[in-house]
Amino acid sequence: MKASEIRELLKLLDQPDIISFAGGIPDPSLFPAQAIGDAYQAVLGGAEAGAALQYQVSEGFLPLRKWLAGQMGKLGVACDEGNIFITSGSQQALDYLGKLFLSPGDTALVTWPTYLGALQAFNAYEPRYDRLNTAGGNMTPEAYRAAAAANGGRVKFAYLVPDFANPTGNTLDAGQREAVLDLAGELDIAVIEDAAYRALRYDGEGEPPILALDCARSGGIDKARTLYCGSFSKILSPGMRVGWVCAPRHVVEKLVLMKQASDLHSPSINQMVMHRVAETIFDAQVEKLIGAYRKRRDALLSALKANMPDGISWSRPDGGMFVWLTLPEGVDATELLARSVKEARVAFVPGNAFYADGTGRSTLRMSFTLADDRAVGEGVPRLAKLLRR
Amino acid sequence: MKASEIRELLKLLDQPDIISFAGGIPDPSLFPAQAIGDAYQAVLGGAEAGAALQYQVSEGFLPLRKWLAGQMGKLGVACDEGNIFITSGSQQALDYLGKLFLSPGDTALVTWPTYLGALQAFNAYEPRYDRLNTAGGNMTPEAYRAAAAANGGRVKFAYLVPDFANPTGNTLDAGQREAVLDLAGELDIAVIEDAAYRALRYDGEGEPPILALDCARSGGIDKARTLYCGSFSKILSPGMRVGWVCAPRHVVEKLVLMKQASDLHSPSINQMVMHRVAETIFDAQVEKLIGAYRKRRDALLSALKANMPDGISWSRPDGGMFVWLTLPEGVDATELLARSVKEARVAFVPGNAFYADGTGRSTLRMSFTLADDRAVGEGVPRLAKLLRR
Repeated sequence: MKASEIRELLKLLDQPDIISFAGGIPDPSLFPAQAIGDAYQAVLGGAEAGAALQYQVSEGFLPLRKWLAGQMGKLGVACDEGNIFITSGSQQALDYLGKLFLSPGDTALVTWPTYLGALQAFNAYEPRYDRLNTAGGNMTPEAYRAAAAANGGRVKFAYLVPDFANPTGNTLDAGQREAVLDLAGELDIAVIEDAAYRALRYDGEGEPPILALDCARSGGIDKARTLYCGSFSKILSPGMRVGWVCAPRHVVEKLVLMKQASDLHSPSINQMVMHRVAETIFDAQVEKLIGAYRKRRDALLSALKANMPDGISWSRPDGGMFVWLTLPEGVDATELLARSVKEARVAFVPGNAFYADGTGRSTLRMSFTLADDRAVGEGVPRLAKLLRR
Repeated sequence: MKASEIRELLKLLDQPDIISFAGGIPDPSLFPAQAIGDAYQAVLGGAEAGAALQYQVSEGFLPLRKWLAGQMGKLGVACDEGNIFITSGSQQALDYLGKLFLSPGDTALVTWPTYLGALQAFNAYEPRYDRLNTAGGNMTPEAYRAAAAANGGRVKFAYLVPDFANPTGNTLDAGQREAVLDLAGELDIAVIEDAAYRALRYDGEGEPPILALDCARSGGIDKARTLYCGSFSKILSPGMRVGWVCAPRHVVEKLVLMKQASDLHSPSINQMVMHRVAETIFDAQVEKLIGAYRKRRDALLSALKANMPDGISWSRPDGGMFVWLTLPEGVDATELLARSVKEARVAFVPGNAFYADGTGRSTLRMSFTLADDRAVGEGVPRLAKLLRR
């Protein structure tokens, strides 16, 4: 979506009689505002105030980088602060990685559908997209290479959201993750692992990050081809804009130079506050969100089951923020949205926005993070009624 | 300078026996930490907490944009919030404007010397540089155009710091500003006005922004060719990373799309806090800084006069942070820095880093923002002694 479309969506959210499943945003009532406020106070009221308000190095606040290296270690990625680069949210990581890898005409492999913001970030570097099938059925490496060459470029990376993907909610199992690495190895390309939703698992056990599997087969992070993009946005606060990349040192060094030229560094104070808050309440906050969002996911799935007519299917995500609906062939979700907003006062995101080739017209994304009882209890039947006509 | 070199400079600053005139940074003891801390507390303790920690629109926090439009109005630039775009410091503005205008091989006009960070931002887009002489003596428009065409591109913009420039400290008078607009008009190119130091004037009256002169001759901001880059970094805090662009609406709209793809938006909370702080203490903070920095500039200029041997000249800035020294021909400032750090324990920035063509080897930049009595009283004589040998 363009800024103008996001603005329209935000306007919808402000209308009390619109029930919105559109925005892929956390519930602001669950932000740990008190803990964050206390941390700003502690940082600005103490000896760190000068450093918090001053310029700092482009790679980011060292104690935060060390803490993140420790967290990555717990996920099976042995690394140190030299492998951690702080970004202004993971959107910036995607922009920088696009800039680093893509020349006009190069090929990026993405799933059909994929995260819209990744397409927007990469589009600035004028790539061609080819389809990555994480459930199997990929082209041969030769065929990917030939298609890229026919466009005058090379395949540069595969981008994916392996956990509770935006927009589908799907999660790759360990075998599918290994298969992505197999393909990337044969193509000798990077893998961009977007882990924005990773911590938000409501059922089952976590799968290893692709980066962890990569380290195991390549002999350590500095030999890995996977670039892991993490974010505090879904857990602590998107408005503070703090994310990170965990990657081989030689990639981090290039990203640091890029950041120095593009915005010097992410805000010092926000990094220092995020470090304090994460160190003290990260795990508790994850538990709190899981408790709240799991209920909302369950309620949405139940309402879909109880109300949706035959011919409509949807994903059953183990975590994250999204349920992905597939409508009967021929039903255009963009047209449906216009009718839905007008007649049912229910909003969602039409799925074709998430397809690099503009297909997927009979799909749509529903977010359950803001779906309270009223939203689910009234909104889903109203949408279902529209679909039954 | 590269990140590694900045790290080295920062390390120097940490050594208590090194007197550094190198860093172009504000004095952290002058940051309004209390007022900023109070504003974070007020925002996070009240009804705005959710919005402060949430995603927001890419163009920036509306009340801050309105306040900035009012400030621009006081400088003679009649505009509204549609002409204001919030950036993560003015470095990001330079990056985006480079991305917006430059294709590889295009020409950017810059002064010799110019702000190093601007060269770093623009370099990512692979331009050629040609020389802008703000004191007169420019080439004809035809000659600029021919030189650009010979390189396979076009002249796209002129970039300059018209007030207390980094690194020279020089300020353009109104006639020189008009001359820049004349040349830009003849070339039909944009003017990027970097106003980072504008508020820090220690003597005399402020000159009108180039953008104000442009509005007067073009018939209003939306017809202007000048893009004004402002920043809170030198007055309130660089660590919060809040800057702005004031520009025609059609340029702001393009920058908004660029920002959405590259980092979504600057931190919501920092924009809200900056708005509160700016609204209440901006003018008082400017007065406080002027009082402190004027004394340090005067002390540095006096010490240079009292100590420097013949054959060395320097700028006498009316504001800003920098004095620019020109050494006798043949004296290489990079070599001098190595000797100075070793023998005199005094640091500065060699001037050639600021030249797009790598010349200027016998120049150097001294910052006086951190130059307390000891720094000036001991550092300048020690450097002068080295130069006398």
